[in-house]
Amino acid sequence: MFTGVLTRYKEFLPITEDTPIFTLGEGDTPLVRSKNLWKQIGHSELYFKLEGCNPTGSFKDRGMVMAVAKALEERSSTIVCASTGNTSASAAAYGAYCGLKTIVLVPKTGVATGKLTQALAYGARVLAIDGNFDQALKLVRSLADVQPITLVNSINPNRLQGQKTAAFEIVDNLGDAPDYLFIPVGNAGNITAYWMGFREYKKIGRAARSPHMMGFQAEGAAPIVRGEIVASPETVASALRIGNPASWKGALAARDESGGVIDAVSDKEILEAYKLLAQFEGIFCEPASAASLAGLLKLSRQGMPFEDKRIVCVITGTGLKDPEIATRFFDLPIQGLPSDLSTIQKAVANA
Amino acid sequence: MFTGVLTRYKEFLPITEDTPIFTLGEGDTPLVRSKNLWKQIGHSELYFKLEGCNPTGSFKDRGMVMAVAKALEERSSTIVCASTGNTSASAAAYGAYCGLKTIVLVPKTGVATGKLTQALAYGARVLAIDGNFDQALKLVRSLADVQPITLVNSINPNRLQGQKTAAFEIVDNLGDAPDYLFIPVGNAGNITAYWMGFREYKKIGRAARSPHMMGFQAEGAAPIVRGEIVASPETVASALRIGNPASWKGALAARDESGGVIDAVSDKEILEAYKLLAQFEGIFCEPASAASLAGLLKLSRQGMPFEDKRIVCVITGTGLKDPEIATRFFDLPIQGLPSDLSTIQKAVANA
Repeated sequence: MFTGVLTRYKEFLPITEDTPIFTLGEGDTPLVRSKNLWKQIGHSELYFKLEGCNPTGSFKDRGMVMAVAKALEERSSTIVCASTGNTSASAAAYGAYCGLKTIVLVPKTGVATGKLTQALAYGARVLAIDGNFDQALKLVRSLADVQPITLVNSINPNRLQGQKTAAFEIVDNLGDAPDYLFIPVGNAGNITAYWMGFREYKKIGRAARSPHMMGFQAEGAAPIVRGEIVASPETVASALRIGNPASWKGALAARDESGGVIDAVSDKEILEAYKLLAQFEGIFCEPASAASLAGLLKLSRQGMPFEDKRIVCVITGTGLKDPEIATRFFDLPIQGLPSDLSTIQKAVANA
Repeated sequence: MFTGVLTRYKEFLPITEDTPIFTLGEGDTPLVRSKNLWKQIGHSELYFKLEGCNPTGSFKDRGMVMAVAKALEERSSTIVCASTGNTSASAAAYGAYCGLKTIVLVPKTGVATGKLTQALAYGARVLAIDGNFDQALKLVRSLADVQPITLVNSINPNRLQGQKTAAFEIVDNLGDAPDYLFIPVGNAGNITAYWMGFREYKKIGRAARSPHMMGFQAEGAAPIVRGEIVASPETVASALRIGNPASWKGALAARDESGGVIDAVSDKEILEAYKLLAQFEGIFCEPASAASLAGLLKLSRQGMPFEDKRIVCVITGTGLKDPEIATRFFDLPIQGLPSDLSTIQKAVANA
């Protein structure tokens, strides 16, 4: 039965008597068993955690419900973030539900208007500044210092608290933690949050073990792999286009404490995995999400053994979030045929 | 815990020993309590059933998992449908997962390529015929007669069997059926399926009552309201653009047996509800989905009393399905601002 993450995982979250409990439908997302692609890595038990089934179409909703509940508890009237993607959509949805004003700061240049449509639909106020993303983030931090405004970027610790519930759900579904968790790494908040969740469940005995945390950045936006800030991150996976991750240290800790890796995959590998997921598992995700499977396939090709292992790949958002890429990548010329049965039968036989 | 509808509601579905059980993540969708709009209809308990949280973004997945499971049981190698929208996306996803060839027939003219992107992403074969939608449907019916091909349009009875599970979930969540169920009516399969579900649950005592079924068509595509086929249905809500619904009789039975209504709402009312849902409930749906709330608001304005009633509005699909409408309807000119704190503070105060 559906309840939402604040109710379901109340005891694990920073919830007090004064924290309002509500839900927009976040959490309790499907854990789907691989039907075909598991064969590519030898005999194994492979699952996909479909975070695109959250109400705004990405994993951000888990953390946003917690951050917005705390904003209400602190009597904020306004939430603010710097973002051009999934965070702004999620903030705007929870802001609308809770009657808060939502302000999104974006850099004036380099913003695809289409990406903001969702935030605008929910009624967020979008301010475009003469400056880059770093300046936008600096401004929203200052705004949140001096007014009754709550910052809901992932440097707000309540965000990661909410996001860790995805790890709880995986353990609750499987009965224990998997051997490996593969996850895309952009701002590195999500890998940090999952690791927090797995550790907490192990500590209280709800899981007997914790997984190796396997984080994957895009090659053109791989500051953690390279060990240095990337000034101009570039990748087809827009949600991974981050050169200086906010949770850099958290990602390193997750890797080192779990015996995992943080590695990079190329845009070609990301798009290959994006296509494989759609056409062999029926999972249409945004390109960034496919970095988890791309990483698994890369390590498997390099000879890392996954025989008889239980593996979860996190699929962070729906493919409907990025229609431009999908249209460019998948649209084929559609040929017209006369409307008679024998022609169509032949076409079907040859299709 | 997530299981999928075939496992969860096995005893209510046409499942035999030979039916394969699998899931792509369909069902168990959120039932979200209205935070703001309930006030517009007097003191009431209003919920939204978010079917856009299904894996392909619409309610079609519930019926498709059942139809495809039966296709596998019958050893079909191919599934086929005539559709340019949500049905084709869902068929293509389940076809991909199960290794079936998926064929989608569309009329050559009047098809928005963007609408087919999702089906193409999942690897469906799209054939465009020189003819209209009715001819496409006629052809797929003939195809399914003469080859090891299963038709998965909603005239396949397994589709409605799967779709009725949404009614079960509502009762399981609320402890009983609501007083009223508001639902968009296009091809009329969904209202027919919900009514089947509510009746079955009442019959075995899992629900003490059944709801009044309140179906809403779009004014320009309202054959059931008008009592005659509409040759050229027109509405902004593409999923409701149907002039001769396949489940016409089912919709009438649902209305008459439940003491409900089938009525129409204008495009203006649909778009108004679409905006209200996003900006006052944080729910971004496709325009067709908003017909349920539009209908409720219309009847309330006409004086129908909903005081102290428990009401569910079905939200059939995500707004990300129809980016063109959203961009046209919500995109605002975004003004650039200098990157200094005091300017931004003023802009925030005035936003």
